[in-house]
Amino acid sequence: MNSFGQIFRINIFGESHGESVGILIDGCPAGLPLGPEDLLADIERRKGGQQPGTTPRKEEDAPHFKSGLFQGKTTGAPILIYFENNNTRSSDYEKQRSIPRPGHADFVAAKKFGGFEDYRGSGHFSGRLTLPLVAAGAIAKKIVGAVRIEAMLVEVGGHADVEKGIEHAIANKDSVGGIVECRVNGLPIGLGEPFFDATESLLAHAVFAVPAIRGIEFGTGFAAAKMFGSEHNDAIEDSEGATRTNHAGGIVGGLTNGNELVFRVAVKPTSSTPKEQRSLNTSSGRQEEFVIKGRHDLCIALRVPVVIEAVTAIVLADLFMREQRIGRVLS
Amino acid sequence: MNSFGQIFRINIFGESHGESVGILIDGCPAGLPLGPEDLLADIERRKGGQQPGTTPRKEEDAPHFKSGLFQGKTTGAPILIYFENNNTRSSDYEKQRSIPRPGHADFVAAKKFGGFEDYRGSGHFSGRLTLPLVAAGAIAKKIVGAVRIEAMLVEVGGHADVEKGIEHAIANKDSVGGIVECRVNGLPIGLGEPFFDATESLLAHAVFAVPAIRGIEFGTGFAAAKMFGSEHNDAIEDSEGATRTNHAGGIVGGLTNGNELVFRVAVKPTSSTPKEQRSLNTSSGRQEEFVIKGRHDLCIALRVPVVIEAVTAIVLADLFMREQRIGRVLS
Amino acid sequence: MNSFGQIFRINIFGESHGESVGILIDGCPAGLPLGPEDLLADIERRKGGQQPGTTPRKEEDAPHFKSGLFQGKTTGAPILIYFENNNTRSSDYEKQRSIPRPGHADFVAAKKFGGFEDYRGSGHFSGRLTLPLVAAGAIAKKIVGAVRIEAMLVEVGGHADVEKGIEHAIANKDSVGGIVECRVNGLPIGLGEPFFDATESLLAHAVFAVPAIRGIEFGTGFAAAKMFGSEHNDAIEDSEGATRTNHAGGIVGGLTNGNELVFRVAVKPTSSTPKEQRSLNTSSGRQEEFVIKGRHDLCIALRVPVVIEAVTAIVLADLFMREQRIGRVLS
Amino acid sequence: MNSFGQIFRINIFGESHGESVGILIDGCPAGLPLGPEDLLADIERRKGGQQPGTTPRKEEDAPHFKSGLFQGKTTGAPILIYFENNNTRSSDYEKQRSIPRPGHADFVAAKKFGGFEDYRGSGHFSGRLTLPLVAAGAIAKKIVGAVRIEAMLVEVGGHADVEKGIEHAIANKDSVGGIVECRVNGLPIGLGEPFFDATESLLAHAVFAVPAIRGIEFGTGFAAAKMFGSEHNDAIEDSEGATRTNHAGGIVGGLTNGNELVFRVAVKPTSSTPKEQRSLNTSSGRQEEFVIKGRHDLCIALRVPVVIEAVTAIVLADLFMREQRIGRVLS
Repeated sequence: MNSFGQIFRINIFGESHGESVGILIDGCPAGLPLGPEDLLADIERRKGGQQPGTTPRKEEDAPHFKSGLFQGKTTGAPILIYFENNNTRSSDYEKQRSIPRPGHADFVAAKKFGGFEDYRGSGHFSGRLTLPLVAAGAIAKKIVGAVRIEAMLVEVGGHADVEKGIEHAIANKDSVGGIVECRVNGLPIGLGEPFFDATESLLAHAVFAVPAIRGIEFGTGFAAAKMFGSEHNDAIEDSEGATRTNHAGGIVGGLTNGNELVFRVAVKPTSSTPKEQRSLNTSSGRQEEFVIKGRHDLCIALRVPVVIEAVTAIVLADLFMREQRIGRVLS
Repeated sequence: MNSFGQIFRINIFGESHGESVGILIDGCPAGLPLGPEDLLADIERRKGGQQPGTTPRKEEDAPHFKSGLFQGKTTGAPILIYFENNNTRSSDYEKQRSIPRPGHADFVAAKKFGGFEDYRGSGHFSGRLTLPLVAAGAIAKKIVGAVRIEAMLVEVGGHADVEKGIEHAIANKDSVGGIVECRVNGLPIGLGEPFFDATESLLAHAVFAVPAIRGIEFGTGFAAAKMFGSEHNDAIEDSEGATRTNHAGGIVGGLTNGNELVFRVAVKPTSSTPKEQRSLNTSSGRQEEFVIKGRHDLCIALRVPVVIEAVTAIVLADLFMREQRIGRVLS
Repeated sequence: MNSFGQIFRINIFGESHGESVGILIDGCPAGLPLGPEDLLADIERRKGGQQPGTTPRKEEDAPHFKSGLFQGKTTGAPILIYFENNNTRSSDYEKQRSIPRPGHADFVAAKKFGGFEDYRGSGHFSGRLTLPLVAAGAIAKKIVGAVRIEAMLVEVGGHADVEKGIEHAIANKDSVGGIVECRVNGLPIGLGEPFFDATESLLAHAVFAVPAIRGIEFGTGFAAAKMFGSEHNDAIEDSEGATRTNHAGGIVGGLTNGNELVFRVAVKPTSSTPKEQRSLNTSSGRQEEFVIKGRHDLCIALRVPVVIEAVTAIVLADLFMREQRIGRVLS
Repeated sequence: MNSFGQIFRINIFGESHGESVGILIDGCPAGLPLGPEDLLADIERRKGGQQPGTTPRKEEDAPHFKSGLFQGKTTGAPILIYFENNNTRSSDYEKQRSIPRPGHADFVAAKKFGGFEDYRGSGHFSGRLTLPLVAAGAIAKKIVGAVRIEAMLVEVGGHADVEKGIEHAIANKDSVGGIVECRVNGLPIGLGEPFFDATESLLAHAVFAVPAIRGIEFGTGFAAAKMFGSEHNDAIEDSEGATRTNHAGGIVGGLTNGNELVFRVAVKPTSSTPKEQRSLNTSSGRQEEFVIKGRHDLCIALRVPVVIEAVTAIVLADLFMREQRIGRVLS
């Protein structure tokens, strides 16, 4: 399923080198003022080509609303957001087809889809599909209104100074990964459900839908496993549930507790490193040295924060609507 | 929703100190030989009371099949597995109601459910609901047959020697957390989908439904964020997709790649530490020192591996059925 | 899937001659006063044995709440309602196994489930599973509160005088069918969605889940196909949407329009007629004359109205919750 | 939700006088040869303007595949089919806004969506959205391959001779309804599930998603309610389940039985009759005589058969895939 959400439900489509990528959003409340301009800031943040370490491929990335809007507002009907792919150089990929790129879906996709997959530039598996995710995220942010969602890169290639991390990658002519931290403020108490609709379950589900993510931890996360209970527990201080510490990262029993929600995700180094690599040539049946062609980011993690914000906003918008904290019609 | 899965779908119910806990399983293939004896080994592994650090509360934990079986085999109709709660001491909890326990759902549950929740022993939020999860997991393991799922505790309270970690907790009269590692062998290539039904998304969703989990990482996980791409990429070596290294932990592009699937989860220290704690007394409006009553594990992580195996098996059984790798009727 | 509903979601289980039948209800609002006594009137209406034409099989039909209630109110956690099967005479059915009964699921169930199905008394296909449906319906009626749902038998065996229809069946020693009409008052305007979640779509879906239903029509129904548009259109008369006529049966464009919702369902004659019948003996491969054993209703339609009310209430409760007309916590 | 299906899942979008209508199809098997030419015959059948009684509005109705195809075959990724709206005359509708048209969604849509709905030509409620349904149906027909689905108009305005019925409408300058009968051959035994996923439940759900449908009946349908059980039961004649009669219409216990599946649907007369009508003027608060403007069919039922075939094929494709009768990859 290429869908996510129960009430506010998104459906992605498209391929890296096909005609388009986009997203169909169902369940958006009616009456939300909305236009392309609401998406541009986040789309810009996601774009490659502005900083050292990001890909020189530049798509126009202009969002087209094809349904669900009328007189500048949402109508309650499904919203189709459509992006054209203009700037594709498929021939780069066709040459490489017989050598599945390590770290990419090439090999598994061919096995799964019987060779019928669009293999050009990872096709439907491409990171380009995070563009419509970011678009939907910008809408979700408008829906959840006063909630503030902020993700930032806090480590690159092992360096807390992100610029140093990038320089390190450039100097080594190799790709690097990073850590993104997301903080959410302004959440109500009690969002989420015990067990399968735990807020962590939904967020982790959505976060791992983002390509290149290798781990997620909430609050103190993996470090919690080394603490004593008496250290880790967050003492409740007032009737609004404010806690002295926030080792839980704002979620207890699967439900938000009104404190800041905090999680971190690990982003692997870009699979398309400029370094020479080894893989199987499926035509010859022999291993081969090769160098990846195409235009790629040295550190894909640079572009991830806005995508993490997007999926976080999407999860929250859906939870707010399911739990009736936001109406089906805005007034 | 207290449900999970698309074809093989589980629905949990019950409360810690109510009449019962249990699970309703829909979509199990017909023709699977099944009886209570198939569940006992895993139920036993989950049980407290056998080792230092686990709770002295002992339920009989006998599973009762109430539907869906006929002549020793599954029929294709829903399977109800029911466990009675016999050994409850609710009065322990009633006294504590006005002081929401830090790290527990007491406070958030009361806010969410307007005070109507069954608060005794965490009610529906209780870790006791992992008992029916383990039961469903044992069935899921039978369904996926040759796939071997093995989770084990690899660290307790910061000690790689688990017994040392427990001794440390006992010596400090405090609770501790731990790290559970899960390894799955025998998986086919191509299980899962890109984006929202990525194998990591589904596993992470299910794993965070288990109480006390604070983080999950696949393969090299958070350490991947510090590596170069040329180090991290797993070179493909043969036509079955075997890779020289396994930093990806067996999943690429959201799909299994035929190598060992590996993930680790962080378990927080048991919230019910024996140490004196501080929390708000919601009746008086003042903070208070108090000591948790009731019977609790010093290290809940000791009981987690079999639960992680269970949710892993449940995710895989559902994926196998969705992807038609296992039939609706077994022969 | 043995489930229905998006927020207020029911899951049925059980077999006619197994240990139990029952239902697991998820998404019921917290704070609803509830006990077995709330279900008894509807359970009584569904019971056989009280009137000529209904089966002499009498189950105690006592509902047991096994989870989700605390101090006489719903908690927001899943509600398990459980009915024991006490009064089964399976040997009646075992003898008949080789002759699949016409009109029953015997033949198709064996083909679908590979012979692993519980075939006794139709097993999981049995009309006995309408008992938990009726229980869930009684709860749904409480949820939708002021909405009045009333179904009644308006025709039996072709007779508008229902008693005459039954006498006709008894006199002919044959089973008969009937027509049930359901009227719902007190609905808001705008319930439902265009297209797939049209109120008619959801009601029809639920109604055809009831065994023995062969047709459904809304408002003027099949007769509308013979009318002119100028006759059929219901002129809107006031700002509340009251219409002069109600040919639409209270639904326009898939949405309720605030007028009385009216639909009729056709119930086939009980398949288990006392008359001699012909079917294939699957052991001998030859056709055979035979007479159905077991205890059966001459006119199953007599027991259908309360079941139709139940599924109607279930659909409405789910729609009310999805559309935020009823809260997750009642106050 | 504007979605339908569990594995083969369709999502419709668009408005009558907006930029587009279309459909996003998820779960289509990979490897299906597909192009616009596969949709044209059914799109042509649905089009107005060819016969007396159908609307003179002519859209080009050219389907554009925007994703999910590669080298002339499906890839397993979502398929976006997009239709432009070229031939809209919205001003016709804007004038009428204050008078909600009887039989249309105008009034209820405004109430439901707070006045934010696109009201032009029924907006998202428009019959124009059956165009993408027909497109998806054409694909579904290819998926179910050897199954033959044929719907035809068997009655118009009360006349079994359809042309007479149309002449009658033209002569009376009024709109008329009709009856569509659908017959499906080549189905396997055992498709569907007991209760909520009964084949009738799914078909009825999908059929009532089609605008203007007022009733559905399977096999003998409403007439069954007047029969004796001994007449109505279909005697099984051979080991393939062939029955002497087919009063059940090919479905028993919610499952197909291998005989011809037969159902009929009642289509109401087109709400937009050319006759003068009465409705409330919501601006003035007074009732008013008025005549519908815009281009409309005298008998919408003429265009319904291909839509009924489409939703039938969609239901069957989903069932075939859920039940593993059709693979995820075609070879």
